[in-house]
Amino acid sequence: MAVGEAIWPEMYPIQGLQIGVAQAGVKYEGRNDVVVFSVCEGAHVAGVFTQNAFAAAPVIVAKRHLLASNTRALIVNSGNANACTGDEGMAGAELSCMALAKELKVNPESVLPFSTGVIGEPLPVNKIIDVLPAAITSLQEDNWLAAARTIMTTDTRPKGASKQFDVGGETVHVVGISKGAGMIRPNMATMLAYVATDANIDPVLLQNMTKIAADKSFNRITIDGDTSTNDACMLIATGKSSAPRITSTQDEGYQLLLNAAIEVFHTLAKQIVCDGEGATKCVCVEVGGGDNAQECLDAAYAIAHSPLVKTAWFASDANWGRIVAAIGYAGIAELNASNVNVWLNEVKIVENGCRSASYTEAQGQSILSLAEFTVRVDLGRGECSESIWTSDLSHEYVRINADYRS
Amino acid sequence: MAVGEAIWPEMYPIQGLQIGVAQAGVKYEGRNDVVVFSVCEGAHVAGVFTQNAFAAAPVIVAKRHLLASNTRALIVNSGNANACTGDEGMAGAELSCMALAKELKVNPESVLPFSTGVIGEPLPVNKIIDVLPAAITSLQEDNWLAAARTIMTTDTRPKGASKQFDVGGETVHVVGISKGAGMIRPNMATMLAYVATDANIDPVLLQNMTKIAADKSFNRITIDGDTSTNDACMLIATGKSSAPRITSTQDEGYQLLLNAAIEVFHTLAKQIVCDGEGATKCVCVEVGGGDNAQECLDAAYAIAHSPLVKTAWFASDANWGRIVAAIGYAGIAELNASNVNVWLNEVKIVENGCRSASYTEAQGQSILSLAEFTVRVDLGRGECSESIWTSDLSHEYVRINADYRS
Repeated sequence: MAVGEAIWPEMYPIQGLQIGVAQAGVKYEGRNDVVVFSVCEGAHVAGVFTQNAFAAAPVIVAKRHLLASNTRALIVNSGNANACTGDEGMAGAELSCMALAKELKVNPESVLPFSTGVIGEPLPVNKIIDVLPAAITSLQEDNWLAAARTIMTTDTRPKGASKQFDVGGETVHVVGISKGAGMIRPNMATMLAYVATDANIDPVLLQNMTKIAADKSFNRITIDGDTSTNDACMLIATGKSSAPRITSTQDEGYQLLLNAAIEVFHTLAKQIVCDGEGATKCVCVEVGGGDNAQECLDAAYAIAHSPLVKTAWFASDANWGRIVAAIGYAGIAELNASNVNVWLNEVKIVENGCRSASYTEAQGQSILSLAEFTVRVDLGRGECSESIWTSDLSHEYVRINADYRS
Repeated sequence: MAVGEAIWPEMYPIQGLQIGVAQAGVKYEGRNDVVVFSVCEGAHVAGVFTQNAFAAAPVIVAKRHLLASNTRALIVNSGNANACTGDEGMAGAELSCMALAKELKVNPESVLPFSTGVIGEPLPVNKIIDVLPAAITSLQEDNWLAAARTIMTTDTRPKGASKQFDVGGETVHVVGISKGAGMIRPNMATMLAYVATDANIDPVLLQNMTKIAADKSFNRITIDGDTSTNDACMLIATGKSSAPRITSTQDEGYQLLLNAAIEVFHTLAKQIVCDGEGATKCVCVEVGGGDNAQECLDAAYAIAHSPLVKTAWFASDANWGRIVAAIGYAGIAELNASNVNVWLNEVKIVENGCRSASYTEAQGQSILSLAEFTVRVDLGRGECSESIWTSDLSHEYVRINADYRS
């Protein structure tokens, strides 16, 4: 189940980045489960990672390698998260980097490892190493779709987004893929996302930009409130575009690249929500009128995580009482309920803390029947606002997570 | 669906407290939906109430009346929460108190109103007022079961608990009922609970005792993380026991009464979890080895609210990776994952942050197949511990909350 139609946009190759895939049989049979990204010399790579205290071995290794060396390659496997696997898991992550480094004739610390799948099972690292030559043989620039399919776990669709813009008469491209459908409440970064640009940009600016774009996209979605042990979001800049090098936030290209990165990140994040486990609705929760951003987010996440609200959405039931109850327990100090207003799209459902006089059940139901809608809340006490995206809670969510060891 | 067998214990009448029921047709047909408690002169009543910012009209009125006057009566309706109903709702709550006060020839402020049911619908207060004479006619001491059935909404069972003890050669009784099955994550108090004792106790001590007992019972359960707008827990002390009056926390009777109150509150709270909407498992989450109580609770609630953990429990799947992921995102500062140990009952499943070497899936599954079990976590960094009770997340939870306007 997933919301709306699957869309695969035009995905531009990024000069200086090659992508290869292979079939290692880590867990899944008859499909690819290993991706190799090979990055040209002189490229810069930035990333943000999960804040989960049980960060997986590959996350720990990738963070260390990113600081220690310029990055020349990334290796990703699906089917096994290599999380909570202790020293053996750390050794496995390092071994896969060493093996790929040897094949590509680069430094082991210039390789970043990533894993996604079941937590706590030993990673069959030899299976991965065995197929590295095949993955390298398949390296090509125009290979985004194969990579997006290879990193899928409970995802039902590959996820991709792309954008191009001109600066100084030259074209810059931003293209990326992501995966994720359950255990989704990113904190700092998210699930797996690989975005590449041919922009030529200073590495410190690239890292800051990755953090800013992740905060406005992947860090504003939630499916089930469960922050994964393996979240990672990478931005690769090959520098192969002829557009001027970006060395300052004042450069014309900086804002254009930032906007493009945010747009690509946001599109990938929203695709994750639409493909949320069992999702039948994709919902924007927009909370304004707050004293500060945090209380807007607190109210938005209280709504987005409420099982009662999410099951009502699934039923296309505009049960606004559950929404106000969630706002009420969000922990906002001295919230005056009688200043709170709530809309479904443009229909006012709660006015001054009570059911809006003009509201009819039929209006509510017609909006809730849409695959995508906005719940807008005005807290009536300030100027701040925040938006997040989430999905509903369906029978299918329970079936997927009760029947399947993900 | 509910966990274990329904048990209705021996419920002692409390001298000085009479209970009447009636059928007003607020929402349900063919069943009682109004309860009147009539309390003798000289009794003391204490209560704790929801902290939801959208506290319902009856909660606001009950809190005010409790401060303004000695309490002589309580009136409860099921089927309608009278929450988010504005001025009209406040008037309805006051009107029901006035009408009952007139019938009983007491001060209107000596009546406390309570409502439970759907949020945001106008309360048909005249239907309630019309049946007050019938409720008063049915007043009797031995009427706990009828009252417990009358306050049910999505509950599948009436909930009762009782305890007696001797002090100074005289018997003291503590008896109570509760209701609640969804929108359950009490904060300060919970859903509805009415507990009575014939103990003779100073009113300030009674109020403190109510808070202490609620914090150790109702405030340690969660079904779906949703804190209701109508939670209230009342403790009525009629003073009719011949045991010595309790005027200090040093009195022999104080500790005995506190322990009995905690036991009765806890039994009622656990019955709510076992009757959680769609519940098939009743789970104690015990987190020890914390630096402070709050971080133990943070970890316990992260586990108890994780939809992934709850669906795995439903499937009798010992998916310990989901449990450690929840501990990892609970926000405990500088948690060292490699000091964390986790047990299912007596079986160690996680040792030093990894899968325990001795653990087998068969062991995990045999425990998860039980209707009741404990998840015990040792954070390995301090001496504090906390326990909470929760239920699993089943197809039935989604069905109940998607199909039914509760």
